[in-house]
Amino acid sequence: MHENGQISQAFAHFVVHSRWEDIPAPTRAHAVRSILNGFAAALGGSSDAAAQRLMETLSPLSGERIAPIIGRREQGDPALAAFLNAVAMNVFDYDDTHEGTIIHPTAPIAPALFALAAVRKVSGAELLHAFVLGVDVACRIGNAVSPGHYRRGWHITATTGVFGAAAAVGRLIGLDDPQMIWAFGNASAQASGLVETLGTMAKSIGVGNAARNGYLAAFMAKAGVEGPGAPLEGPRGFLRVTCDEPKFGELAADLGRAFEIERNMWKPYPSGVVLFPVIDACLAARRDPRFAPDKVEAVTVAGHPLLKERADRPEVTTGREAQVSAQHAVAVALARGSAGIADFSDAAVADPAVLTLRARVRPVAVDETVAVEGALLRIELAGGEAIETRVAHCSGSRQKPMDDAALEAKFRALAAHGAPGVAVEPLLDALWAVEAAGDAGAVMRLAQPAADRPR
Amino acid sequence: MHENGQISQAFAHFVVHSRWEDIPAPTRAHAVRSILNGFAAALGGSSDAAAQRLMETLSPLSGERIAPIIGRREQGDPALAAFLNAVAMNVFDYDDTHEGTIIHPTAPIAPALFALAAVRKVSGAELLHAFVLGVDVACRIGNAVSPGHYRRGWHITATTGVFGAAAAVGRLIGLDDPQMIWAFGNASAQASGLVETLGTMAKSIGVGNAARNGYLAAFMAKAGVEGPGAPLEGPRGFLRVTCDEPKFGELAADLGRAFEIERNMWKPYPSGVVLFPVIDACLAARRDPRFAPDKVEAVTVAGHPLLKERADRPEVTTGREAQVSAQHAVAVALARGSAGIADFSDAAVADPAVLTLRARVRPVAVDETVAVEGALLRIELAGGEAIETRVAHCSGSRQKPMDDAALEAKFRALAAHGAPGVAVEPLLDALWAVEAAGDAGAVMRLAQPAADRPR
Repeated sequence: MHENGQISQAFAHFVVHSRWEDIPAPTRAHAVRSILNGFAAALGGSSDAAAQRLMETLSPLSGERIAPIIGRREQGDPALAAFLNAVAMNVFDYDDTHEGTIIHPTAPIAPALFALAAVRKVSGAELLHAFVLGVDVACRIGNAVSPGHYRRGWHITATTGVFGAAAAVGRLIGLDDPQMIWAFGNASAQASGLVETLGTMAKSIGVGNAARNGYLAAFMAKAGVEGPGAPLEGPRGFLRVTCDEPKFGELAADLGRAFEIERNMWKPYPSGVVLFPVIDACLAARRDPRFAPDKVEAVTVAGHPLLKERADRPEVTTGREAQVSAQHAVAVALARGSAGIADFSDAAVADPAVLTLRARVRPVAVDETVAVEGALLRIELAGGEAIETRVAHCSGSRQKPMDDAALEAKFRALAAHGAPGVAVEPLLDALWAVEAAGDAGAVMRLAQPAADRPR
Repeated sequence: MHENGQISQAFAHFVVHSRWEDIPAPTRAHAVRSILNGFAAALGGSSDAAAQRLMETLSPLSGERIAPIIGRREQGDPALAAFLNAVAMNVFDYDDTHEGTIIHPTAPIAPALFALAAVRKVSGAELLHAFVLGVDVACRIGNAVSPGHYRRGWHITATTGVFGAAAAVGRLIGLDDPQMIWAFGNASAQASGLVETLGTMAKSIGVGNAARNGYLAAFMAKAGVEGPGAPLEGPRGFLRVTCDEPKFGELAADLGRAFEIERNMWKPYPSGVVLFPVIDACLAARRDPRFAPDKVEAVTVAGHPLLKERADRPEVTTGREAQVSAQHAVAVALARGSAGIADFSDAAVADPAVLTLRARVRPVAVDETVAVEGALLRIELAGGEAIETRVAHCSGSRQKPMDDAALEAKFRALAAHGAPGVAVEPLLDALWAVEAAGDAGAVMRLAQPAADRPR
């Protein structure tokens, strides 16, 4: 079972033969929200410097420019558009998170599908179905190699995303079972992305390639580029090579009955996930009538050991560092009452009002009784009073996912930040209605600024 | 030293500041022969089915078609040409081998450089210099991760080749030291290729990507796409992630004084390297006046344990399998007196004259006294006579490299096999004279069939 291709065969059979009727309505709805959230992130990231420089490098090599690039006037060939849209979607780490693997599944997969929709007519339901299947493939592979894979240094979003994109696109271009196994093999030959690159622009290359190369892996298979019979579970296949102790049983457990997309969470704040409950607590405390920023004398944050390990960072100088600083997150949330993309910028880090409060935030304390999605906050005010807030399940957790209004607010804020030329409301309407769309490509065209689209 | 970027800095400094005057004449000559050998392999592979199908998939996505594709009338954008020429060069495994790492260094690196020569004027000396540096980078990284990297399942030609291509192209587009480190980081985000794909067409995707993505990694760095400070030696950098026991000391040992290209060997036969001494022995025995194919009663081959381990394969049905079958290699060499590309085809495997002899070849014997580049052959003839041949150092070994005449013969045979429309002699002349060429791109144009070049 673990070496002879049965797992790859089961996966391929599942992707090729799954029926839309078999995808439960809540699963479909979760897929729609994940895509909407992905577009929000891509609009915000579309004018980022890394996205810009990668476009400058790759655009001169584009083939026919028929596929839209989210938030921008430019178009690219489908492979380039898949690359650039994946980059934009993930560049701020403000997209989504698959529980357990920390894969950001939408970025490598949805852009590959929308690129295809620029080449041939794909209905919204077809696209959603393929997206659900692609996410399932990527996240199941992720389950099987976690936690060793990421810990070893593989950027799991990129390395598993290429399989998801290959599966999703392969489904829509009608690969048969053997071709789907080749598509996995062609993806396995391109799986890459290192944790060492996180925090640098080079991270985005891995994520962009996952979308691009997954797209191409499917088309290569269609053209007869044959791969190995057991690309996943073979003796020198992806699982064993990139993980010391792969859990083969995770791959096909409940295949077709449980869908990994349902374990996908949308990020309410552009920060490390460990800071979500801290920010929730600050925003709640700020609504206490006793609160005023200039009354704050000291702030104590306590939480799960991971909170201290990942985010006890009192001195930060850049927006990127601020994304993993509890001290900055507390200060900016209390000072401004917000924690959006502009609140984790270089400018926000240098804001005197934020700096004043940041100096009053104590080192992070550990409280072993607090879960990773919880936090304790204590604000000591002038005059001896204190505001105490406890968050059990943060926004963006599976217990408390972002609701539709919060998703829309995030969407509008990110569009305003990164792509102010895009008409937001028609795009939002189209995304909410994507399941009924006759042509999913029309949604993508709404994600561009309204003016003419040269290049 | 091992985590803080000093190794990446030393590498970058070396590539950026190396002077052509510092490359010894024998090193230069070895580089010329490696490139000539690479063109031979690419001409032979240019019409292979894998190369063809990959071109069909990728060519519609090409940008401006300004870069020649070896052996074909088509051109592609430089990134596509780099990909396809690398594929053609390596698809038959008939290219070259770096001693110790079994990297095939020319395929991922030279095509990236010739692609650049289609975009800007690059002299032959500049190209050769960058090639020497690129091979040095790839093979030094290979030295540092061997043998664990390949053994774990990484196709080392692809995974290290992307760094070599990035270094080589980065040198020619004038990256400075920090940009060269970014180029390594941008390459590290794209390093991929699995041993599981060997023997299938998917292998070629990894090799093609190494050339393409290395080319792009350099241009991304030039455009300001920043990477990590220690992409090679960092805690989650390439060396540690892809190898359990990296040998950091191998990276920069004698940097600028010893050049890895000098350890590169050209393959005289399109078979596994362990079969080279066996084939040498057969071709020598065949010249014995007592020999005639129909007099052969039994053949015994003895050699290093690896010979038996890798190539004791009495029953094969395809040309690809035949490349690693001692029984086929012996039979075809004795039957035909040749061991070229046509002798390891599906047709050759089915040739009755070959099959008759193959049935008389015994299982491979192990002789611990024989080195891996040696072999013992004993042919028992009708009438009781026997021909015994001992090879100490096979053709293509460092002790007995292919001479210029043998390289030219290989070149002509492969051109005739894969690209009969190419005018061979002017191309050979241009390759021998490449060091003096004012425009290296002119060499590449000679590698296309003489007619007009549509598409």
